[in-house]
Amino acid sequence: MTKLTGDIMAFDLKCYLAEQKAVVDEALDRYLPPISGLESKVVEAARYSLFAGGKRIRPILCMAAHDAVSGSSDALLPVACALEMIHTYSLIHDDLPAMDDDNYRRGKPTNHKVFGEGVAILAGDLLLTYAFELMASAAPSVENPTMLLNVMRIIAEAAGFRGMIGGQMIDLECENRKVDLSTVEEMHRKKTGALLTASVKVGALLGGADGDELKRFEDYGYHFGLAFQITDDLLDIVGNFKEMGKKPGSDLEKNKMTYPALLGVDGSREAAEMHVKKAVEAISPYGDTAEPLKAIAEYLLQRRG
Amino acid sequence: MTKLTGDIMAFDLKCYLAEQKAVVDEALDRYLPPISGLESKVVEAARYSLFAGGKRIRPILCMAAHDAVSGSSDALLPVACALEMIHTYSLIHDDLPAMDDDNYRRGKPTNHKVFGEGVAILAGDLLLTYAFELMASAAPSVENPTMLLNVMRIIAEAAGFRGMIGGQMIDLECENRKVDLSTVEEMHRKKTGALLTASVKVGALLGGADGDELKRFEDYGYHFGLAFQITDDLLDIVGNFKEMGKKPGSDLEKNKMTYPALLGVDGSREAAEMHVKKAVEAISPYGDTAEPLKAIAEYLLQRRG
Repeated sequence: MTKLTGDIMAFDLKCYLAEQKAVVDEALDRYLPPISGLESKVVEAARYSLFAGGKRIRPILCMAAHDAVSGSSDALLPVACALEMIHTYSLIHDDLPAMDDDNYRRGKPTNHKVFGEGVAILAGDLLLTYAFELMASAAPSVENPTMLLNVMRIIAEAAGFRGMIGGQMIDLECENRKVDLSTVEEMHRKKTGALLTASVKVGALLGGADGDELKRFEDYGYHFGLAFQITDDLLDIVGNFKEMGKKPGSDLEKNKMTYPALLGVDGSREAAEMHVKKAVEAISPYGDTAEPLKAIAEYLLQRRG
Repeated sequence: MTKLTGDIMAFDLKCYLAEQKAVVDEALDRYLPPISGLESKVVEAARYSLFAGGKRIRPILCMAAHDAVSGSSDALLPVACALEMIHTYSLIHDDLPAMDDDNYRRGKPTNHKVFGEGVAILAGDLLLTYAFELMASAAPSVENPTMLLNVMRIIAEAAGFRGMIGGQMIDLECENRKVDLSTVEEMHRKKTGALLTASVKVGALLGGADGDELKRFEDYGYHFGLAFQITDDLLDIVGNFKEMGKKPGSDLEKNKMTYPALLGVDGSREAAEMHVKKAVEAISPYGDTAEPLKAIAEYLLQRRG
């Protein structure tokens, strides 16, 4: 794997991301192949969204954290793919007419636009359920089954009502309502931040981190999550359809509470920079092995999609 | 616990079911209490359906199978409650307008009728996610973490696209279509039978059963599941709103494929009797400790709701 190139040993992030994405894509395709039979459509629908151009941020963060502590867990790839499945299920359900009512996602029609609402709900349910089946199925190959159970608990908690589902509920409650910065932060911390943080944390855990070490990865995940959301909100204002795969300005149109609306564009950029700085600081003791985590965080400030 | 009463040692099923239901109800309330905060409504919605009068068949079957093999696993109650949460999530999602579009369930307005579709979808997601969190959280108290992972895998598989979700997909595909008996059986085996079978199987597994022993409990679950569905279909024809908590004849109205439509009322009753007989036969070596499982199966032939 080409992580370091050139005479100044510059880390090639683009190459790293492409390589890691290929690993995840291959595994996802292997773990959830098409099926035949009367129920084949729900797997087809799940695969439609699973292979609709996701950047695989959560599995890549998970693997990068694992590698940062020099781990070698056989459960890593199933857990990393489970994170992507949970993320994808949340997108399918969030896009439904009863939720955010989105017609496009990553430049393609949303799941319910292609397969209908009933199948889309089931396809989301499938991915959520299968994520846990996939992780539990790693049992025979792990040395430490209690650690795997701990990983599953952390992920379920991050995806549940104290995390992602809670955040989406807050989002539903606050639509068309004026809210303050602390509410916006709580919403994002739960809706997007919790699963991102869990991705980094379980990667480090599988890699062998514990105690204070684990706390560093959690801090990285926390600040990464906020920087991720702020830059996402900024993209909605300054991006374009081709780069984003969805209509810019759609947050504004729906009266969604966003960072730029609360802090202004410049204030939001400053906040994003601050969180990236703190994320990078958290993992600074790890040096070279944490280079991917550092580069991914810094890349957020240049993201275009 | 009063399992045997009277001078002829008759098993008091009514008393047994009431006692076991109370154990499950208390545990569910303790595992998922109401919360405060902006996201409290999604927990309120989940609890609304969780405490809407379910008979707790799956947790009771799980506990009865565990007791039949004289087990004493600390993970039993969390696993039993997780089964009820998964069952409840499936009801919430199945009742949605995009699926079966039901307004009443167990005599009460369905979840989306009370909380709206968006919250109902999230409440289902919550229960599914929390089921796995609850099971994984039992890790510190179990002696055999690998067995707990195996239990979680079996449950996830039964709830997933090869089981419950697959069955619901077949149901959606076959609405308003003429189908044969083998398709109806496949649909029910997956939609309802898979989780019922898994409930019995994981109970026996936690109780210490393996190999041939486990197969007996699987067979019980398989025949129980079919008898359960056939008697459910019969109730839709001969039941009334008060006893069933939903409008009788609703299957007919929706052109749902049912056993009575394919086998007639008498033929369906005979089929139900045959499956109950086979379920009871499967666990016959267990004698007294399997008395609850035997009585629950036989009770299906007298069910009124």
